[in-house]
Amino acid sequence: MISEEIVIHTGGSAGVVDITSNVARFAAARDDGLLSVFVPHATAGVAVIEVGAGSDDDLLSAIDEVLPAERGRWRHQHGSPGHGRDHVLPAFISPSITIPVIAGRPALGTWQSVVLVDTNVDNQTRKVRLSFIEG
Amino acid sequence: MISEEIVIHTGGSAGVVDITSNVARFAAARDDGLLSVFVPHATAGVAVIEVGAGSDDDLLSAIDEVLPAERGRWRHQHGSPGHGRDHVLPAFISPSITIPVIAGRPALGTWQSVVLVDTNVDNQTRKVRLSFIEG
Amino acid sequence: MISEEIVIHTGGSAGVVDITSNVARFAAARDDGLLSVFVPHATAGVAVIEVGAGSDDDLLSAIDEVLPAERGRWRHQHGSPGHGRDHVLPAFISPSITIPVIAGRPALGTWQSVVLVDTNVDNQTRKVRLSFIEG
Repeated sequence: MISEEIVIHTGGSAGVVDITSNVARFAAARDDGLLSVFVPHATAGVAVIEVGAGSDDDLLSAIDEVLPAERGRWRHQHGSPGHGRDHVLPAFISPSITIPVIAGRPALGTWQSVVLVDTNVDNQTRKVRLSFIEG
Repeated sequence: MISEEIVIHTGGSAGVVDITSNVARFAAARDDGLLSVFVPHATAGVAVIEVGAGSDDDLLSAIDEVLPAERGRWRHQHGSPGHGRDHVLPAFISPSITIPVIAGRPALGTWQSVVLVDTNVDNQTRKVRLSFIEG
Repeated sequence: MISEEIVIHTGGSAGVVDITSNVARFAAARDDGLLSVFVPHATAGVAVIEVGAGSDDDLLSAIDEVLPAERGRWRHQHGSPGHGRDHVLPAFISPSITIPVIAGRPALGTWQSVVLVDTNVDNQTRKVRLSFIEG
């Protein structure tokens, strides 16, 4: 297995960060196989959605409705307001996704991008582990 | 890796489509390994649930509550009403799932079925990529 | 592929059960590869979250809000109150997650634990299948 950690700048606000080009670069020069995207953080997830037509912001709004950030709701009380919520997020938006690679290209659909979903405002950078198993 | 795309008829209404038999057929004649089910579309997901006792319709109702289809809520405004919501769905119901295969059989529990979850009413058919890595 | 089923005691109440040590034990003595955690039950999921600082209880509260247990809401009516809801849970908290293993250690972040999420009160024990593919 080939595996490496990349560092993604997420900044100080909640964000949906497109990492498709990182994933594609990692897959290039490989053959067929399965590519694992894994975020080794307890307050972030990874998703495959369309970006650039509003859905990335729609996702952040949906997260705020489904899992409201208000401090009083959550037992976990460390960190900035919303951090309790951030810790529940990965149960719904998993930190792990597996993508098939065909001839060195992630087999994504036309409108699919791989995104890091990070509502945590306390960290400016996040690590993402990319791993590839040839089949 | 063995990989192929199958085409699933989803029709013109939101649906939970059982693809277990397609997955089982693909796994048959293989040995032990991991089977990836990946939907290359930005408005559909894949899940493992029980079907046939109401839970497939329960899932569609839950999606409508968790992610309401009303047009005004979503920035993404292309397509039929609800299409903005459809684009957020895959962040919560991922387009990728990995299933262990033992001696050519998906290691599903008695009540588990693999389903395509597709709330998009604008497409009558969907592709699903099945990939298998022997271990 | 090496694959085995372990049995986890979940008791008679909804719970988030830490299975990190089981996963770590299974990964030890392996080399690099992908580890699949798969729950062969239709009313449970697996997640990677922080435990021990309130987030496990926060997750159970969030599930109760996102997918309320009230019996009247759900078409699936077998089992104890809430069982209809339990059957929708795995679409949102998947029964499958894939974790990279590096030199016999799951590549989890410092605050990440692998947990079985089981809101089903009718079963005292649950099986979890652990599988490993070397890369």
